[in-house]
Amino acid sequence: MSQAQQETIPLGAYICARLRQLEIGSVFGVPGDYNLRILDYIEPAGLRWIGNCNELNAAYAADGYARIHGVSVVMTTFGVGELSAINGIAGAYAERAPVIQIVGAPSREIQRSRTLVHHTFIDGEFGRFARMHVHVTVAQTSITHVRTAADQVDWIIEQAILHQRPVYLQIPEDMPDVPVSASNLRRKPTVSPSIHSVEPDANHVLQILNRMYSAKKPLILVDGESKNMGALEEIEQLVKVTNWPTWSTPFGKGLVNEELPNVRGTYLANYGVKASAEYFMTSDLVLFLGPHLSNINTHIFTAIPDENVTISFSPNQVKIDGQIIRDISPCRMLQSLLQCLDSSRLVKISGPNSPTPPIHKPAPSDSLSQEIFYPFVNPMFRRGDTILTETGTAAEGGQVFKLPSHTRFFTAVTWLSIGYMLPATLGAALAQRDSAIATHCAEHKPKRTILFIGDGSFQMTAQELSTIIKQVLNVVIIIINNNGYTIERVIHGREASYNDISQWNYSHALRLFGLDEEESSRRYFSARTWGELQTALDSEELHRDDGVKVIEVFMDQEDCTGELRDLLKEQLAREKL
Amino acid sequence: MSQAQQETIPLGAYICARLRQLEIGSVFGVPGDYNLRILDYIEPAGLRWIGNCNELNAAYAADGYARIHGVSVVMTTFGVGELSAINGIAGAYAERAPVIQIVGAPSREIQRSRTLVHHTFIDGEFGRFARMHVHVTVAQTSITHVRTAADQVDWIIEQAILHQRPVYLQIPEDMPDVPVSASNLRRKPTVSPSIHSVEPDANHVLQILNRMYSAKKPLILVDGESKNMGALEEIEQLVKVTNWPTWSTPFGKGLVNEELPNVRGTYLANYGVKASAEYFMTSDLVLFLGPHLSNINTHIFTAIPDENVTISFSPNQVKIDGQIIRDISPCRMLQSLLQCLDSSRLVKISGPNSPTPPIHKPAPSDSLSQEIFYPFVNPMFRRGDTILTETGTAAEGGQVFKLPSHTRFFTAVTWLSIGYMLPATLGAALAQRDSAIATHCAEHKPKRTILFIGDGSFQMTAQELSTIIKQVLNVVIIIINNNGYTIERVIHGREASYNDISQWNYSHALRLFGLDEEESSRRYFSARTWGELQTALDSEELHRDDGVKVIEVFMDQEDCTGELRDLLKEQLAREKL
Repeated sequence: MSQAQQETIPLGAYICARLRQLEIGSVFGVPGDYNLRILDYIEPAGLRWIGNCNELNAAYAADGYARIHGVSVVMTTFGVGELSAINGIAGAYAERAPVIQIVGAPSREIQRSRTLVHHTFIDGEFGRFARMHVHVTVAQTSITHVRTAADQVDWIIEQAILHQRPVYLQIPEDMPDVPVSASNLRRKPTVSPSIHSVEPDANHVLQILNRMYSAKKPLILVDGESKNMGALEEIEQLVKVTNWPTWSTPFGKGLVNEELPNVRGTYLANYGVKASAEYFMTSDLVLFLGPHLSNINTHIFTAIPDENVTISFSPNQVKIDGQIIRDISPCRMLQSLLQCLDSSRLVKISGPNSPTPPIHKPAPSDSLSQEIFYPFVNPMFRRGDTILTETGTAAEGGQVFKLPSHTRFFTAVTWLSIGYMLPATLGAALAQRDSAIATHCAEHKPKRTILFIGDGSFQMTAQELSTIIKQVLNVVIIIINNNGYTIERVIHGREASYNDISQWNYSHALRLFGLDEEESSRRYFSARTWGELQTALDSEELHRDDGVKVIEVFMDQEDCTGELRDLLKEQLAREKL
Repeated sequence: MSQAQQETIPLGAYICARLRQLEIGSVFGVPGDYNLRILDYIEPAGLRWIGNCNELNAAYAADGYARIHGVSVVMTTFGVGELSAINGIAGAYAERAPVIQIVGAPSREIQRSRTLVHHTFIDGEFGRFARMHVHVTVAQTSITHVRTAADQVDWIIEQAILHQRPVYLQIPEDMPDVPVSASNLRRKPTVSPSIHSVEPDANHVLQILNRMYSAKKPLILVDGESKNMGALEEIEQLVKVTNWPTWSTPFGKGLVNEELPNVRGTYLANYGVKASAEYFMTSDLVLFLGPHLSNINTHIFTAIPDENVTISFSPNQVKIDGQIIRDISPCRMLQSLLQCLDSSRLVKISGPNSPTPPIHKPAPSDSLSQEIFYPFVNPMFRRGDTILTETGTAAEGGQVFKLPSHTRFFTAVTWLSIGYMLPATLGAALAQRDSAIATHCAEHKPKRTILFIGDGSFQMTAQELSTIIKQVLNVVIIIINNNGYTIERVIHGREASYNDISQWNYSHALRLFGLDEEESSRRYFSARTWGELQTALDSEELHRDDGVKVIEVFMDQEDCTGELRDLLKEQLAREKL
């Protein structure tokens, strides 16, 4: 037996070593008696344990971390923990965030003997919860054999990265201390070469180039699955070299540099601009990057380009005018295109102009309104920020943001589970901080994470603010206090009491969740008028980069913008019948 | 066509009428765009909508309501809502609470056309979430045909009551307004007669009676599934007429009147009392009512009586010395036994004595300790209270409570999902209030609900306190601030940071969650010493029955009792090796 074959390491240490190799810095989760033994390995491996307030929040945070870092991990206990987390895992599945869910399970002996232990239905059946996860993860495994353990861990990590979706790894509680082969650790966890090493077919490259050369009214549409293709640099280069009009979808917003002159924000923000809509609808070539065709992301299917003029790039496939070329790397295809492209042969496009932000200068004593609010706060953003808009009026309003370069932007486009964004803010902020530590750029200003969230959504997962406080993260939370679920009101039941929520005093949130009186009041701002909001935005305290800040803004319960306002008008019209 | 056949009613109204017939007063849930149309029917039917802060809390609350009232309902939206709730539904499955989960789903047309709408994985597949519920509910149905709609509603309600477990009812959003046959409403929702009308076999009755007459050292053991047999009155009569020593399990505690002289509390509380353990172990007849054999409920399987001396009564079966008689009603069997019983032929038992509660009179300036705490607060309980002890030190400590008659007691024995008890407190308190309204006993003192909960558990679902405040419920919450997850510390990782939690300032909870400064401080008490605790317990404010009160008690992070202390000692011993 060779030296390499003899090397062993406890399974728990093996898993944590793999997580470190993935450059993960923070591990989310909640302790429970079946997972405590694996938790022992986290800190010794140089990982930070983020104990969340509950498992759903932990899964949401892991999703947020994965969207910034590329992969993340959440650890829960069997049954109660994993089922609390499952809606967060489902969201990561829907919007393609590779979260590794690690579940501590009863020991192999307890499972074999069908012992009637807690966190089960005392029927001797231990497989139910893994089977439930089949619907929300791309791969599932339970480690029960020491000889295959290391390979199983590697396999499940590969599946998460390959499919860009969550996976489910179950570890019986007698396994973390069991020695397993360490030989795999010599190479980093990788995805099998397969398609990523294959040169794209020259005919396909030529076919696309010819379409690009002959286009008279081309555009580029950047959608959210671009992130999952690992092709953001290639896309930025394509946008720069063509200088063609470029839009993003809500899911794609923030993935392409909005400081570039030809980048026009989302199609949704351009919705009312006639010239934009006309250009979009009559284009003769759309390069569609990372399509994600949910109703919300496509402006209720109206912003999907005509298939006959579209070349789309998705993970593992490219589609030219409806013809699918499978099993190729869109990233390699983009690289080949960029290498061969003769930009002098491309049409030069100057229009259509971006929408000009409204120049209403509201009176300082006027009440806040959604229409003006988002352009008004836009100047607060700076390069490097991560900006999140929770489902509801914030998601609709935030579409008009003009983002500085190097910002990231989160908005829900398919899963739309309200309550997601606050824990996702925690996850995103930790991913930003971990990456700053990893790249030793501590000399830079600390990264900032800015969340816009309605009161109803905030109540769902509010306690996770305490973890943001504990981790001293540089987060600004703008709570839109508009007396309930405005997004539901505009859909149905405008004045129905079921769309009301409990009345909270949000100014006391920081106090309950861990800060003392002085810190709590120093970090809280509120605004009912533009003058008050400007004072908050200008205040030195807000710009100190020394941890969490909360700005509570008050708006009318039926105030909204864009599509939400259209829905409200329809409801009001129905009421008059 | 007869008149009856012609009567129709919108499906939403039909469902709500059925819920009213089940004497349900409160409906839990969260609005979402796919369920808004059914929510329109709640208030017109005379039901109260309890908008919870999130869906897991709603499911927990519905579980608490079902345990008091016998059945309950939670309404969520598709995907995001139902998956957030699913861990609560699983807990109701594990511990047999009949919760009707009603999920508003996308319309039949959207499902048929496989439209890529939000709250799905945009793959045209709408059946995943119902399939996930197969594992945690006893019956599932989606209403898609107008002609079978009413019967389907009735069938699913019957399944919940019959199996005493949750069921899953999906309503596409175009269905609530569709007219369905109202003819079923003339009869109340019922369970098909089947076994409940069948007279027990006289031979079996005689067999049990003879065993009772010949027993020299008999006992009665009341477990939690007694509640699901609908036989609590018969059990109380059996306990009274035999006057035999009676214990309960943790799950059975509160189901039998502890003011009766022969009722000795839980076996766990009697654990250290040698005479009790010896009597229990050498008994020659155990009447075991509603067995529920999880590790936690059976003192890690040590409190399961010998099968050879046991006659057990479970829903749908009776077991005599290991021989199972299936398909009979345990309730009817108990009625037959009581009718035929000649109590003069029963052995008279005087011992063993109940454990005497410790008579430590702690000094007023001494710090609080778990050992003394539970007997110390016991005098605060009064008849009619509902008392809940959350998983952790509270569940362990609360086993020693001596309950007044007509109290109900909740402790988790199988699912043990921490965070459950605060929303369950909301649900139980509403069930108590609804039943008081239903029986017009408003002249009585308002019922009180008292929760003992650790800080780690409180953080999981803390926001539901705001719903308790909004509903002006008469609830006392005792928060045990002991710096983290003590129950995990005693199992493993005594000083590990993963068992720490964020530091909250619990004195500000009432303020954040809706009360003004004055109300908030009037209703909050804290105690580090016995003197402070006594002052709180004696205070007039606490006894005003005018809504929520919070008492924060501080204890050491490794302070615990009973089995938890044994586990801690084992860990300390291992550390010394």
